[in-house]
Amino acid sequence: MLRFAVVGHKATTEPTFSLNDMPGGAGRLDILCRCINSSFFLSHDLRRDVECFLILKGGEQEKTLRFAGETIRSLNPDERSAGALIKKGLTKEATSSFQKAADGIHIRAGGLAELLAEIPFAVLDENGEDIRTAETLPENFLLSDHMNFTEEEMELIKDLPKYSVGPRVLHADHTITILLNEFDRRAAHE
Amino acid sequence: MLRFAVVGHKATTEPTFSLNDMPGGAGRLDILCRCINSSFFLSHDLRRDVECFLILKGGEQEKTLRFAGETIRSLNPDERSAGALIKKGLTKEATSSFQKAADGIHIRAGGLAELLAEIPFAVLDENGEDIRTAETLPENFLLSDHMNFTEEEMELIKDLPKYSVGPRVLHADHTITILLNEFDRRAAHE
Repeated sequence: MLRFAVVGHKATTEPTFSLNDMPGGAGRLDILCRCINSSFFLSHDLRRDVECFLILKGGEQEKTLRFAGETIRSLNPDERSAGALIKKGLTKEATSSFQKAADGIHIRAGGLAELLAEIPFAVLDENGEDIRTAETLPENFLLSDHMNFTEEEMELIKDLPKYSVGPRVLHADHTITILLNEFDRRAAHE
Repeated sequence: MLRFAVVGHKATTEPTFSLNDMPGGAGRLDILCRCINSSFFLSHDLRRDVECFLILKGGEQEKTLRFAGETIRSLNPDERSAGALIKKGLTKEATSSFQKAADGIHIRAGGLAELLAEIPFAVLDENGEDIRTAETLPENFLLSDHMNFTEEEMELIKDLPKYSVGPRVLHADHTITILLNEFDRRAAHE
């Protein structure tokens, strides 16, 4: 199982946002929608062995959505489709443990600290080890949206292993695409 | 200069489509919007040395839009932003030569045959040469949207060099992201 987690620093935690204004009123939710797309879509197929966590920090209380490729339904590649599923996920009350909001979508209260206490993530970082030359790769990767990790987040992740996908700094969704290509290649050569 | 061209087999050629229904009424224009995103976006920057051609085949007359990173303006990463620029491009009458429709956006009548007569494209193909091991890479790549190349298109491209980005068949925009990562890595090692 591969897992990606993306921190949405301004991303709304309420289902009242407009699908027509995800970059604005929803706090760059468009970025997280594209991360859903890149985590799951193959040509005419879905990656069933991937989970994607969205950590939404743009509300009074942080919330985390978990999308599971194994059971997700009604997901299309366009941003509005992912946005509609995020909206559906956010209609479910967030408690301290993950609750099912729809097929393949769970929600809970809490953010990065809670997630890191459970899953050993590696961090994407331009100064990290090159994913192409790393002898082995971890299975769980943490990324940020258009903003850098905050000081508080940096404190949480300072001791985590760091990996880089190449010489340029890329959008989170592009980074996920490149990571999955590396995993595809390694799986094909096993 | 790197160039990508994407064939939109059902993509509308009229500016009357709704930004709220690009996967449906606009003939999977969402795919082409994501190809614009992946062609140009770096983290907080644009790739100025890339052009992206969209070949729109969903109307009475084929049209080709050219997006140039060097001069494009008002492009944001979300699908609606690219869709709004496509809409703007399509308001300009398409004649036999490229006419400027907006900064960095040109349009003309004609499709793949006309483009191939001018630019030597290579084709993305799962059975092509691996881009990682190819000694050199071409600068111009042709991709298809969610549909396979038609028989007529196959006749046009049958003798073109073929390249593959890996063992899985991917969406066109993901393929562009992986290609650009390969170019970034080669440029960094020059």
